[in-house]
Amino acid sequence: MKKYTKVFQGTAFSSKSPKEVEILKDYLFCINEEGMIEKTVAPGTDEYQTLLNSYEGNENFHRLAEGQYFLPGFVDLHVHAPQWAQSGTALDIPLYDWLNTYTFPIESKFSNLDFAKNVYEDVVNTLLANGTTTALYFATVHKEASLLLAQICAEKGQRGLVGKVVMDNPDQNPEYYRDADTETALADTEEFILAVKQLAKSVKQGVYPVVTPRFIPSCTNDALKGLGELAAKHDTYIQSHCSESDWEHGYVQDRFDKNDAFALHDFGLLREKSVMAHCNFLNDDDAELFAETGTAVCHCPISNAYFANSVIPIAHLHSKGVEIGLGSDISGGFSPSLFDNARQAVMSSRMLEDGVNTALPAEERGVPNSRITINEAFYLATAGGGEGLSLPIGRLAENYVWDAQIIDTSLPSAKLPIYEENEALHDIFQKIMYLSRPENIREVWVQGEKVHSRI
Amino acid sequence: MKKYTKVFQGTAFSSKSPKEVEILKDYLFCINEEGMIEKTVAPGTDEYQTLLNSYEGNENFHRLAEGQYFLPGFVDLHVHAPQWAQSGTALDIPLYDWLNTYTFPIESKFSNLDFAKNVYEDVVNTLLANGTTTALYFATVHKEASLLLAQICAEKGQRGLVGKVVMDNPDQNPEYYRDADTETALADTEEFILAVKQLAKSVKQGVYPVVTPRFIPSCTNDALKGLGELAAKHDTYIQSHCSESDWEHGYVQDRFDKNDAFALHDFGLLREKSVMAHCNFLNDDDAELFAETGTAVCHCPISNAYFANSVIPIAHLHSKGVEIGLGSDISGGFSPSLFDNARQAVMSSRMLEDGVNTALPAEERGVPNSRITINEAFYLATAGGGEGLSLPIGRLAENYVWDAQIIDTSLPSAKLPIYEENEALHDIFQKIMYLSRPENIREVWVQGEKVHSRI
Ligand SMILES: [Zn+2]
Ligand SMILES: [Zn+2]
Repeated sequence: MKKYTKVFQGTAFSSKSPKEVEILKDYLFCINEEGMIEKTVAPGTDEYQTLLNSYEGNENFHRLAEGQYFLPGFVDLHVHAPQWAQSGTALDIPLYDWLNTYTFPIESKFSNLDFAKNVYEDVVNTLLANGTTTALYFATVHKEASLLLAQICAEKGQRGLVGKVVMDNPDQNPEYYRDADTETALADTEEFILAVKQLAKSVKQGVYPVVTPRFIPSCTNDALKGLGELAAKHDTYIQSHCSESDWEHGYVQDRFDKNDAFALHDFGLLREKSVMAHCNFLNDDDAELFAETGTAVCHCPISNAYFANSVIPIAHLHSKGVEIGLGSDISGGFSPSLFDNARQAVMSSRMLEDGVNTALPAEERGVPNSRITINEAFYLATAGGGEGLSLPIGRLAENYVWDAQIIDTSLPSAKLPIYEENEALHDIFQKIMYLSRPENIREVWVQGEKVHSRI
Repeated sequence: MKKYTKVFQGTAFSSKSPKEVEILKDYLFCINEEGMIEKTVAPGTDEYQTLLNSYEGNENFHRLAEGQYFLPGFVDLHVHAPQWAQSGTALDIPLYDWLNTYTFPIESKFSNLDFAKNVYEDVVNTLLANGTTTALYFATVHKEASLLLAQICAEKGQRGLVGKVVMDNPDQNPEYYRDADTETALADTEEFILAVKQLAKSVKQGVYPVVTPRFIPSCTNDALKGLGELAAKHDTYIQSHCSESDWEHGYVQDRFDKNDAFALHDFGLLREKSVMAHCNFLNDDDAELFAETGTAVCHCPISNAYFANSVIPIAHLHSKGVEIGLGSDISGGFSPSLFDNARQAVMSSRMLEDGVNTALPAEERGVPNSRITINEAFYLATAGGGEGLSLPIGRLAENYVWDAQIIDTSLPSAKLPIYEENEALHDIFQKIMYLSRPENIREVWVQGEKVHSRI
């Protein structure tokens, strides 16, 4: 009989489709050396009993306690790692001012590697403690500190996709915080790509370099073009911000006489491995271009309440075939938790559907059919993010990686309200999604390794 | 020298006005036998040194550790205690269906006192652990179980204001869950009022009976009239739901040809001690009536995203002089935390100001000047709630009650991102408001007594 590295037994929730959650009651999850789920086995089969007989009681057999459940690890598609230092502050000014008054000064401090280490270790620990097993990070313009972030992800066992930020446009960036010039920006990016690829050779869960133009306003045309070429040359991920706010959307229209999506595409920046944050103002042509190129949208619902002047129509974009995942957007969004962001994704979609202004009659207030359910928000935080990255993550299913959170619903200090002996598992799932705190996340596993524990 | 029962030393945040937070750096808070803050003393004065000399080192002297701060205890103006059992579930159906399919069946189970005890102990513990020192509760129609909730608040040290729910209208309530008839509803309410007043005689922090017509649709005219009379006769608090959703607002218009506010007023249900949940669809005449009668609005931002079809214009109502506090509305809202609700109050107000529909031009999308700041949300959760109840709670100031939470920002498992040696206290305040979890709430005090501790 095949020897598995680890076997887990318990009830798991995993997305079957954007709208449907599969409940795997008392399943066995058999993990191989690579940290992949090689086999899932339902109870009641002969194989189940055979596996139990041979693994139960062994050190590599993990049975969930009463009241515990498996969820896939979360995939956070948009985190500004340096901004963790200012999370929760200064959220009441517009995007442009927020960047110049708060964000750029903080990010500029990451030339100091001691400061960077301090903050980056905290943000990676914090995200892991919040169940985030994969994160797509913006670092800063600094090549060394950006590499340090990738190293910290590697050490702590998080699957990190990290970008050295490019912002070379002297008209839009302060002198104290930008790339020295376009050539340097591109040369630093290429060195960074090679260094992360070198690092990746020894990292089980993977670390990946990401080509990262901050957003169109930050970059010269030459930089945008050069970054598209670098991404193609080294087959890397690409991330940026796209059509976020009225101001940003208008800026790109003025400069290119087109929307962000087509402008980015002209520079080779929309591809299967591209993830674009926000995208609130995509029109249907933009959405089709996203779907055609395999570019994913990263929805950041908490951040959007502050900076996006609108609610992104997720249900509509899903119906257009666009890949969508979820992001915390620390610190445009204050919360490092994708539980919080999943809850907000549902609430924001309800507010889009029903509208907000009580002075309008109900039928003119909102946008019908905009709501998403908590099942869909869970999908965005897990399988949707995995599909956005084209990685086998975000599901607890065969041929996916064992990236998992163990949620304890019966912890005395953070007990979820479950009273029925046989409460429906789908109700328990909803309670987990709406009420879990970091305290309820007892263990976090990435690629078959335990990377966080509260026990 | 005056002997105080307890003296606390540390930095506190407390509302000066709806928009301003006062920072009391390293203050002394001197508590008397009644659990009131008899004196606050700023550092650098002679009195400060004299007090330190005489109290420091004593058992009744409490100095905050590094990284800890005092906040006032939260005042939750709207909690359906029995609905804790279903919190987080079934949030994707309209109010009317939600009540009939989920909520009434659960509430009907509270005829069983064992079940009631189980859930009510959990909800009071949970709210205390979330920093809620005062709660205004809807119980169920059951007189005995409602009294049990008041007793549990009394024992656990929470300031509970509790209502036996009245819902006697056979057209709007199922046979298995309503008052037997109007007379019984009124008789039970009066017995309940007297029993809670009796209980209150031995409860330091106070428990209060609340006259509680569920909402207009639930009640006959005779019941509404009788309840207004009972509230006047016994000088009690009154709570209900008011102008919550399109459906409810329309129902009252059809039945009385006026808005909820004036209908409630006709029955004597708007008074200084009245708190009305939601109130999204108040018009300016309604708001003036609220201001004149001293009726408070309880804003429930999380619940509103699901059931209110709109965002309540808090900034506008504040400008009209209406008293406003904050409510979790468990389980229309899923979260027992007023931190979560304060965050949502800010976000919802931003979404009202900017609007939601990207298909509209910016200038037609939202309602200008609707945003509130985190300072104002903090005010709603503390001083605003205290003013709504006309009780000396919600501030850390002289002649207020010592209801306080001790927030630890430097807890290893839930560290807030504070990196500067001398980070501005107002930034720390914002980080506390946006990022605290129940874990960060190390102690909770009500009326000078410690009622919750994580140490
Ligand atoms: Zn961003
Ligand atoms: Zn309610």
